[in-house]
This record gives sequence, structure tokens and C-alpha cells, in this order.
Amino acid sequence: MRTSYREQLVALAASIAEICGLATIAMETATRALLRADLVLAERVISEHEQIIAACVAVEESAFVLLVRHQPVAGDLRTVVTSIQNVFDIERMGVLAKHVARVTVRRHPEVAVPGEVAGDFAEMGRVAVKLGRATQQALLMRDVETATSIDDEDDAMDALHAHLFVMVMDREWRHGVPSAIDVTMLGRFYERFADHAVEICRRVNFQVLGEPYPGDVTPA
Amino acid sequence: MRTSYREQLVALAASIAEICGLATIAMETATRALLRADLVLAERVISEHEQIIAACVAVEESAFVLLVRHQPVAGDLRTVVTSIQNVFDIERMGVLAKHVARVTVRRHPEVAVPGEVAGDFAEMGRVAVKLGRATQQALLMRDVETATSIDDEDDAMDALHAHLFVMVMDREWRHGVPSAIDVTMLGRFYERFADHAVEICRRVNFQVLGEPYPGDVTPA
Repeated sequence: MRTSYREQLVALAASIAEICGLATIAMETATRALLRADLVLAERVISEHEQIIAACVAVEESAFVLLVRHQPVAGDLRTVVTSIQNVFDIERMGVLAKHVARVTVRRHPEVAVPGEVAGDFAEMGRVAVKLGRATQQALLMRDVETATSIDDEDDAMDALHAHLFVMVMDREWRHGVPSAIDVTMLGRFYERFADHAVEICRRVNFQVLGEPYPGDVTPA
Repeated sequence: MRTSYREQLVALAASIAEICGLATIAMETATRALLRADLVLAERVISEHEQIIAACVAVEESAFVLLVRHQPVAGDLRTVVTSIQNVFDIERMGVLAKHVARVTVRRHPEVAVPGEVAGDFAEMGRVAVKLGRATQQALLMRDVETATSIDDEDDAMDALHAHLFVMVMDREWRHGVPSAIDVTMLGRFYERFADHAVEICRRVNFQVLGEPYPGDVTPA
């Protein structure tokens, strides 16, 4: 019975890491669709989103079942409860990827992002995927080193987001209001995606090191 | 000891409802500041935000302590774990109120929202506060009726948000890109505030009725 309980804990961590991987792939695909105005890819992200949600619900439920059946204590208890919190963040990551895909669909056949900011979005997509993969790894391996190193990527994302804001607010912006709004919202979707990844990694640190994790819990 | 445990459960619910009230007041004050370009009020929301975060951290910690010390089972276990999820949403509600206040500060002494959409924001603020109060009540009383009735308010918020989007995307929009971006972001902050309130109310329903709450867990 003990073995089975341990196995369930390991399986729970593996499942959560796997869903984090799905959300990351969704963002990767959504970014490719965005930059190419690829309607088929964008619609695939939207239709596959249901699977991410279903996986989140299933994992959350299995975490509850584990809590109720095995009444874990101390560290294990914290692990299971923070797992449930992590699922919540991953669910949001999936939603944000879907939001990116939706903008692509709305603007099709035009490319939603003007050429002069396409490079920023390619980079934001790259950073988002890197953060998503590092988070997946951190969840699976309880790997604090990965979890800590993602701060640099998060800073890169913030810098990209700030740069976008400058571009769009500039008097030289020639693409009109609708485009400025798309770019602003898209920028925020990528930034929030990164915030959720960072939040999960902070929890991994907290779990592994027992570090008190208050104060800057919430991305500003 | 049992009594003390029961008391702690009740106190936990009361604390969470109280923080939800603080986040709601923050949004109410931020809206007033926004509509009047009131720098002092806006800065008060920003400086008081730390207290909301500190309260969230303290309540989350006390929920963990309760779990570890008393090992609640079945319904109580679910109550405590969903409490931790609720705190997460309330924390975000507080952050969103702060975001509104920040836009006010950034645009001061100008009013961040043009006159023709000021009415929409007044209404969004009103709906947000109503949702926040209903959520506070639902948390405190485990009041499913309140929790269910908020769907109407959430629909009202979505309609307001959609209307704003139409206004800003219109060719007749005469306030330029920076203002369009402010209005778009502000609209999203109110809409997300409402989403978090609705999410909490769904959990209250789930807890009280034991309704399976999957599928549309996540606001689209």
C-alpha cells in the first residue's frame, strides 16, 4: 500500500509536468501560427485546448483523491496541495496560448503583428517555450537549479514586453489602433504565460528548499 | 480540541471573505480614482496592496497549518484545499485593482479614460464591486444562491467589455493609440477581476453541492 501511495505521488508529478508540456507546445504552435497567419495551426491550438482543460481537471481530481485516501502528512501534504495550485497556473498557460491563436484567427488572412514587431514576438515565443520547458523539468525532477535559472528568462520577457509597449506608444506607430491593441494584448498574453511559469518554479523551490515564499508571490 | 479545529475552519472562511472584501474595496477605490484622475486615491490603492498580499500569505499559511495539524478528511479537507485556491484568485483580484490604479497614476493629471467611455468604466466598476461583495458573502456564508446569481453580473461585465472593444476598434475613435491601449488594458483588468470572482463562486457551489465543476472551469 505504501508503495502504491509513493507511486501515485510520482505519477501525479509526472502528469502535471506532462500537462505543462502540452501548454508549452500550445504556445509554441500558437506563436508559429501567429507569425505566419496560419489559420490551420491556430485552429488546431484552439480545438486541442479542450484536452488541456480535461487533463487539468483529471489531475486536480486525482490529487484530491490522493489526499482523501492517503491523508499524506508534512512534506507530502504540501506537495499535493501545491500540485493543485500548479495545475491552476498551467491551465492559465493553456488559456493564454489559446488567446494568441484566437487573435491569429481574427486577423486572418492578415498577419496580426506588423513586420517591425514580428521579431519581438518570435523572441517572446522562444522565451515562453524555454520557460515552459524549464518549468516542466522543474516539476518532473523537483529541480531547483532549473527553477532558479528561469529568472533570467523572465527578465528577458519583461524587457521584450516593455520594448513592445514603447513601440506601440510611439508617435511613429503607423499601423493604427486595432493593430496596436492586438500587439498590446498579445504582449500581455506572453508576459502572463511567463509569470505563471515563474510562479510554478517558485513553488517548486518552496517545496524543495522549504524557503518561505511570500512577498513577491504575485507578479506585479 | 475538536471545537478549536471547528473554530479554526470558521475563522479561515472568515479571513478569506475579509480579504475578498479588501480586494473589492481596492477595486472600488481604484475606479473612483480612475474616473476623477485622483492621484492620492490611486496611490493609496497601490500602497495598500502590500497589506492584501500579506493577508493572502498569512491565510494561505494558516490553511497549511490547519491541514498539517488536524488532518481534516472528506468535506473539510476539500474545504481547506479549495480555500487555498480561493486565496490565489483573491490575490489576483487585488493585483488587478492595483493595475487600474497604476494607469491612473501614469496618465495623471489627465483622466485615463475619454469621456465617451467613462460611463462604461463607471458601470464596470459597479459590476466588479457587486461581484466582489457577492463573492465575499458566498465565501462567508457558503451561500450558493448568491454564488449562482452572480452569473448575470458576469454576463453584464462581458457585454460591457465587448462594447468597449467595439468603441476602441471603431474608425471614429479620436483619442489615439495610447488612449486606446489604456482603455483596452483597463477593460481587461475589470473583466479578469470578474472572472476570478466567478471562479471562486463556482468553487463555493462545488463545495456546498458537491457538483462536479469541470468543463468551463476556466474563463475563455
